Amino acid sequence: MNPLIPPKENTLPLTSGGTYSSVLGTSVGVASAGIKGAERLDVAVLRAEGPAAAVTTVSTAAAACCRWTRERLPGMLRAVVVNSGNANAATGLQGEKDCFRMADETAKALGCDTNEIAVCSTGVIGVPMPMDRVLPGIRAAATEMTASGSDAAQAILTTDLRTKEASCSAAGIAVGGIAKGSGMIHPNMATMLGFLVTDAIVEPSSLQSLLEDVVNRTFNCITVDGDMSTSDTVILQTTGQGVVVETDTAEWDILTQALYSVCRHLAREIARDGEGANRLVEVLVEGLTDEEARVAAKGVIRSPLVKTAIHGCDANWGRVVGALGACQVPHLEELSLDFAGIPVVRDGMPVPFNETLATANLSQDEVLIHVRLPGDGIGRAWGCDLSADYVRINADYRS
Amino acid sequence: MNPLIPPKENTLPLTSGGTYSSVLGTSVGVASAGIKGAERLDVAVLRAEGPAAAVTTVSTAAAACCRWTRERLPGMLRAVVVNSGNANAATGLQGEKDCFRMADETAKALGCDTNEIAVCSTGVIGVPMPMDRVLPGIRAAATEMTASGSDAAQAILTTDLRTKEASCSAAGIAVGGIAKGSGMIHPNMATMLGFLVTDAIVEPSSLQSLLEDVVNRTFNCITVDGDMSTSDTVILQTTGQGVVVETDTAEWDILTQALYSVCRHLAREIARDGEGANRLVEVLVEGLTDEEARVAAKGVIRSPLVKTAIHGCDANWGRVVGALGACQVPHLEELSLDFAGIPVVRDGMPVPFNETLATANLSQDEVLIHVRLPGDGIGRAWGCDLSADYVRINADYRS
Repeated sequence: MNPLIPPKENTLPLTSGGTYSSVLGTSVGVASAGIKGAERLDVAVLRAEGPAAAVTTVSTAAAACCRWTRERLPGMLRAVVVNSGNANAATGLQGEKDCFRMADETAKALGCDTNEIAVCSTGVIGVPMPMDRVLPGIRAAATEMTASGSDAAQAILTTDLRTKEASCSAAGIAVGGIAKGSGMIHPNMATMLGFLVTDAIVEPSSLQSLLEDVVNRTFNCITVDGDMSTSDTVILQTTGQGVVVETDTAEWDILTQALYSVCRHLAREIARDGEGANRLVEVLVEGLTDEEARVAAKGVIRSPLVKTAIHGCDANWGRVVGALGACQVPHLEELSLDFAGIPVVRDGMPVPFNETLATANLSQDEVLIHVRLPGDGIGRAWGCDLSADYVRINADYRS
Repeated sequence: MNPLIPPKENTLPLTSGGTYSSVLGTSVGVASAGIKGAERLDVAVLRAEGPAAAVTTVSTAAAACCRWTRERLPGMLRAVVVNSGNANAATGLQGEKDCFRMADETAKALGCDTNEIAVCSTGVIGVPMPMDRVLPGIRAAATEMTASGSDAAQAILTTDLRTKEASCSAAGIAVGGIAKGSGMIHPNMATMLGFLVTDAIVEPSSLQSLLEDVVNRTFNCITVDGDMSTSDTVILQTTGQGVVVETDTAEWDILTQALYSVCRHLAREIARDGEGANRLVEVLVEGLTDEEARVAAKGVIRSPLVKTAIHGCDANWGRVVGALGACQVPHLEELSLDFAGIPVVRDGMPVPFNETLATANLSQDEVLIHVRLPGDGIGRAWGCDLSADYVRINADYRS
């Protein structure tokens, strides 16, 4: 029996070594303010002057900075100020004031209006911001502005093991970005932040639609443990130093593909770097509608039983069927399913497979769970295995 | 600062040693058919002749027996036949035929119509039923009918560590029941089954409403890992040997309370017996509407970050706030929160607490997370901590 063949993804090649600052018109400042311990970079200022868009957490416990940012975007932006080590969440009115002071300090240093600064904070919840260290850090970062995107990628990390950076360039359109993911080695840091930038000249509301579309297909399709944070934010800035790109043009498609390619890479790197994770898992659902396929893929990648099976290199396909059923996927009597390249279900019925080969395939760095059902939709989701280390990391923080 | 005082629950005392067969008019047969290994009971027939109601999984991958049962109930029933060791799920047309043959064999032995038999199967997914062993097992069980509810409670177990049984009697109304839970020590057994019976005489559609209401507040409020199975079924039978109970009467309230008391006990025992679990966790949300409070309680109990924190005896209240925010709970700026009896948040702001005392309280067998928000609703949910054993149990099955 032949394995299913995954459809080709509409991506563009990434630039080797590319990052946020690969895009013309950006400048970056970083500092070590001592929020997450001495010597570590923990403040970044990302400057790109032009229309910007943002997507933030839908949590009703959203941090002050998320509310600040979404009140201002889409709209004109001069820079983003970010700190790691403290999320400034569940900090009440003081948290709002501190968020404002961060924007204000950045604006003063850059010589612009406070309302033209977006703010992001990631780290521990429920602890007041150490403003006596944060403000000098912001001043230091915003005064120099000679750092690289890679420095900023360092400065936004909390417990991630690796920085996440990418850029892509095609037909005179450049997109770059950095991200941090759900390391969650310390508690209350289930945060993802993404900072994207393009040199394309795009009208703010189109920029917002573009960002929402791409985030929906990338960062919204990753899960480490299904928890949503109080601080998730993705911002797309523009520098205005490239070509004008209008919707419904060939250039628009290229911009969309470039942004998707960068975000897809960053999203997969976040999933791969999930705490305690040994491997990246991709769930590909072909069939249904696009939206249904995406919901199904996310349902499978979120299932702890599927995640533990993959951790144990066990081609336990019944758990995938269970997860699909649990998220109300129809037509399972016509299901075809490959587990790590091995056909395990055809037309809703189990097919015999080689367990040794399955275990070998499941031991790879990347595992594909490929679902095919009636319909023309495609949905992808990314996650990681669930290991005993995840539990250890998250249970033993204070002991 | 004083801890929050939990509101009193509207429950009736349980009968010591009570079980399904404590209710007059029931009879039980069991057998060891060799489905889950020699010597272990794995078939039960639960006889109670009268109107019955059922709630089954909403999974679109529901097993054949779930579909069989819900096509017949609410309605007249003679008996339920159950087997453990094989879920008869993802077994296609053959599975449907086998389900029918199980009902038919039971009906023949009891001398009734095949349509008056409900069928439940729990165990491994995707493996054909060993009918050569199942049918003789059913004959043996249905011929004797001299076993107890406790025997049946044994026969329905898969990987649970303990049987789950209860009964309650008040004002001439008796309710009894047994259940099995989400042991999930073997894969694909994320199944809960519940078999309830009352001697009250109740009209079928009222019985169905009663069961749905109580299941919604008990079995639907427990989670071990958030996965939903292909086989979850709860059946409420009647024997007609007691008093007539009509809706909107004082007797109806007593029947409701008795059924709630039995189901609440069984649900909590399932949560406590979750695989790898060290303790029972109850989340009590006071405020919002009843429905919103229940959704919030279930959101908190489902969060892996909350579950690992409790496993580590860490009063990490930020994770509870994160989980509440993630399920869109409003008014968090007015949140009060106690963690294992210790005030940690008042009016949305952290309050200092004694970490040593918190760790001691979190080490108990039962932990209460008590949330208070504006509103008059009450919601409760039960679950367990998430341990490294959970991962080990679920990852290492085939290795």
